[in-house]
Amino acid sequence: MRWRLDISYDGTGFSGWAVQPGRRTVQGELESWLPKILRLDAPVALTCAGRTDAGVHARGQVAHLDLADPAVDGGWLVRRLTRVLPDDLVVRRMTVAPDGFDARFSAIWRRYVYRIADEATEPDPLLRHLIAPVRGTLDPDAMRTAATSLLGLRDFAAFCRQRPGATTVRVLLELGVARTHNAVEITVRADAFCHSMVRSLVGALVAVGSGRRDLEWLTRIAEATVRDPTVTVMPARGLTLEEVGYPPNDQLAARAEQARTRRELAESGAGA
Amino acid sequence: MRWRLDISYDGTGFSGWAVQPGRRTVQGELESWLPKILRLDAPVALTCAGRTDAGVHARGQVAHLDLADPAVDGGWLVRRLTRVLPDDLVVRRMTVAPDGFDARFSAIWRRYVYRIADEATEPDPLLRHLIAPVRGTLDPDAMRTAATSLLGLRDFAAFCRQRPGATTVRVLLELGVARTHNAVEITVRADAFCHSMVRSLVGALVAVGSGRRDLEWLTRIAEATVRDPTVTVMPARGLTLEEVGYPPNDQLAARAEQARTRRELAESGAGA
Repeated sequence: MRWRLDISYDGTGFSGWAVQPGRRTVQGELESWLPKILRLDAPVALTCAGRTDAGVHARGQVAHLDLADPAVDGGWLVRRLTRVLPDDLVVRRMTVAPDGFDARFSAIWRRYVYRIADEATEPDPLLRHLIAPVRGTLDPDAMRTAATSLLGLRDFAAFCRQRPGATTVRVLLELGVARTHNAVEITVRADAFCHSMVRSLVGALVAVGSGRRDLEWLTRIAEATVRDPTVTVMPARGLTLEEVGYPPNDQLAARAEQARTRRELAESGAGA
Repeated sequence: MRWRLDISYDGTGFSGWAVQPGRRTVQGELESWLPKILRLDAPVALTCAGRTDAGVHARGQVAHLDLADPAVDGGWLVRRLTRVLPDDLVVRRMTVAPDGFDARFSAIWRRYVYRIADEATEPDPLLRHLIAPVRGTLDPDAMRTAATSLLGLRDFAAFCRQRPGATTVRVLLELGVARTHNAVEITVRADAFCHSMVRSLVGALVAVGSGRRDLEWLTRIAEATVRDPTVTVMPARGLTLEEVGYPPNDQLAARAEQARTRRELAESGAGA
């Protein structure tokens, strides 16, 4: 039986989502507790929607897990996990997944928010672990104009750490900039992200918003087919995976198959 | 010359505002750095609007400080402090105080917010240091009705740790209850607070909101002239001093004199 887990974590104390030997990771923490609680002999394997890097937070991470025993009670398991997990990691819900659900391949979008404190925002030490500071004062209007120019289906190679054979073509659905009381919040929503893409997009917008770069620079580098070294990758601390979107239940399987096929084509070289 | 300091801190790592030998406190941190930066031979003394307890946070603490040198640049001093202060403590602004200003005695109200996670709120590990958990599910309507019964000028002895000779009469201006996505937020605003008053008021509302106690109990204990042992003092972690209110500049001195006189009368026994 496949289960859907809804997970939140403060990334500060984790070396990211994915298991790494000798490191404290979100996946590692969960995969070590689940077999103990369920008294399983075999290890379990979690698949997540967004493999966050070291220091990146999540309020809306989604993962799936297959369990042989059909008699597991999700509510009971969440309560047991709450008792043993460290307080920077919460499994909010654990529910039987609908047919065809795959946390990674069924997802149709991921929404991240990057929070920045500039010299016009009110410093808030209570949220310091969620907000990355920058020097000077950002111009949200300039950033919004720049953001609009990046929307849609395109090759984001300039903003990605290259992986051999992997595509860097993505659909950027939303790139919003809003100034709140204590942060400039950049909302980034795309069908999927390549490595370091959110933090590079934000770095490019910050360069424009601070006046160090202009729209012409952005337009030029956005055309590049390799990573542009003048784009700053912003620190992990400001980044939070807020939500993952899935299609209606009757489209989950088709979406997963489509995403898996595209990924395979890309990795065989045909998609890039 | 008198200066006004606007201060925010994450209370988690502090033994409260007030200097205590051998403890890390907000006042102690500031009073140790200010003479170093200003190259003063004598110590400085800060007076604050709300002496927060160990673990209590502040986003809107206000303090004053008298400096002999009239040539100090507030903006420069804030930048220097930002460089040396630990990142859980921020002096947001330092401005020349208007005539008659006293951070403590000129204040006309203090506004605190207490944040609670019950079983109906979405657990948020990113804000876990600001939100205190309770078991069960609170009923905000019942809490609002209870809150309304406590408003106005009255003796809050039932909710205060007694100090000999000190008055426990206060004006409770606002006691609001709102459920947000990840917390039940209780806003408490009064002319002033006696010791443990906010956390005791919240403890009483939680008792009513969880169904453990009823309005009759609250009405009965609210009449008491000594601290009621059945009232739970909520943990510090959920409490944040959000804002301090001052009258228009031309009323600062009169307000300070009035508050100081009342305090002296109370401490001589005449006011209680």
